[in-house]
Amino acid sequence: MAGTPLILQQDAEQTSVWLEDYFSRLDSAEAPQLLAAMRYSAMNGGKRVRASLVLSAARLASGNTGAPLPAHLAVAGAVEMLHAYSLIHDDLPAMDDADLRRGVAACHKAFDEATAILAGDALQTEAFSILSRPGLMTDAEQQLRLIAILAAASGQAGMAGGQMLDLLAETGAPDLTETQKMQELKTGALIQAAAMMGAIAGGGDEKLVKAVERFSSHLGLAFQIADDLLDYQADAEQIGKPAGRDAVQGKASFVEFLGLAEARAKADSLIDEACASLDDYGAEADGLRGLADFVINRNH
Amino acid sequence: MAGTPLILQQDAEQTSVWLEDYFSRLDSAEAPQLLAAMRYSAMNGGKRVRASLVLSAARLASGNTGAPLPAHLAVAGAVEMLHAYSLIHDDLPAMDDADLRRGVAACHKAFDEATAILAGDALQTEAFSILSRPGLMTDAEQQLRLIAILAAASGQAGMAGGQMLDLLAETGAPDLTETQKMQELKTGALIQAAAMMGAIAGGGDEKLVKAVERFSSHLGLAFQIADDLLDYQADAEQIGKPAGRDAVQGKASFVEFLGLAEARAKADSLIDEACASLDDYGAEADGLRGLADFVINRNH
Repeated sequence: MAGTPLILQQDAEQTSVWLEDYFSRLDSAEAPQLLAAMRYSAMNGGKRVRASLVLSAARLASGNTGAPLPAHLAVAGAVEMLHAYSLIHDDLPAMDDADLRRGVAACHKAFDEATAILAGDALQTEAFSILSRPGLMTDAEQQLRLIAILAAASGQAGMAGGQMLDLLAETGAPDLTETQKMQELKTGALIQAAAMMGAIAGGGDEKLVKAVERFSSHLGLAFQIADDLLDYQADAEQIGKPAGRDAVQGKASFVEFLGLAEARAKADSLIDEACASLDDYGAEADGLRGLADFVINRNH
Repeated sequence: MAGTPLILQQDAEQTSVWLEDYFSRLDSAEAPQLLAAMRYSAMNGGKRVRASLVLSAARLASGNTGAPLPAHLAVAGAVEMLHAYSLIHDDLPAMDDADLRRGVAACHKAFDEATAILAGDALQTEAFSILSRPGLMTDAEQQLRLIAILAAASGQAGMAGGQMLDLLAETGAPDLTETQKMQELKTGALIQAAAMMGAIAGGGDEKLVKAVERFSSHLGLAFQIADDLLDYQADAEQIGKPAGRDAVQGKASFVEFLGLAEARAKADSLIDEACASLDDYGAEADGLRGLADFVINRNH
């Protein structure tokens, strides 16, 4: 985790502890093999950027500078489960057919394909289960709003739709606009949902939620461009999957359209725009700014 | 639909109309291929027993004897989408590897495997999206409860867990108790959730919800035994998939353990128990009673 800001490290660690605790409470499960596969993938969480977005936005909205509140960690955990589900299914043979995820065996390799499909399915369900728990928030309407945002970001007009477009891009010839749309849905929608859910769970007013929405909209696209840059620049060892893999498969990427220098410049400018969305907020928004900065400067 | 009680036919038809309308409003979707696959499977709805359970329980709870209320149809539609997702994934090559579903090509055959995985994923999401829509119910806590019940019935300790146990049963040698547990999770949990969601959406008090819970618990198991009986008795033409398929694959079934006559007797006695749960209710519970009767007497 060298190079990762301390607060992000703490967010990632506390979310992982929360998830580990959550899974351990499910240990009486009737299908322990399924639970093992869910846990395997959810605990292989990388930087947990989405959890950090939830928690950073919740800090901004709530003014809480201490340890994350349990309800905010639950929201972060739910978003990470949703993300883990999407990675499991993306890696399946019928999808991206990836054997490795973050340097270890993909779920369908560590277990088997059927178990991986079910583990993804059940992780999605678990995310909504967490968010619908009675009393998670004092305001039931607030909870419903979190669920509605997560569902909208994940479904056919969000992440799943984006993955569909990504698959079709392999055989088609998408242009820059289509590629940007695909990435907005596939990656950006959940990034944005995570930040907005944190802002809402933290009790932010509508002005703050709007500011966070704009921030995370720019951030989501920058995040994907940075990912494309990584994919071109990194070697296999650094990121745990074959470098240039997307290029090999002919997948649309920003680097392909813009070239390395322009893609890098676009990511930088998107981060500037993201941070400008937070200009009405002072030091209490530094967490989100730091996260934005980290997203485009990380090299692993 | 010969032999199907009129009220069930009407419930199925009105739910299908609701679903068709819902999908048509999503027509601006960014990934029309995905939407087409979701619609294809959700509209191939068979008898829509789960929707009828929602609507029958809502009628009992609300006293409404007219056309189903829009909110109740939305709950029925959400449950049917959840069910459709599970069938799409069950049919995948890595799971049951079924080419046909209700006499037509399974989703992964009509489209392709990747699209089918995503269509199932997105149908699950859509179910939670429907239930989290602001103002679906006047009481947000009631809506949260519907979501929590559906999530609990569908996840690792419900339907997904049951499907995992079913897959493991192919290579193991489950006994009757294990088979019953598997079926309770795989099929019974969603049957029960559907009935309870209808009772809650209809504004039933806790006594009524409890009665419906007991009713549907017995019904769920009877439903599965009836399904096993069908699988042994029917020919391929009648049910739209190769007869005896579960037996061929060595899957655990009640008929295998109990024999035809005892399995039939057990289903009958479960239906009696189910109906006894409704003894405190009069003619207003006849819809649920009729449904229970239909479940074990259907021959298609």
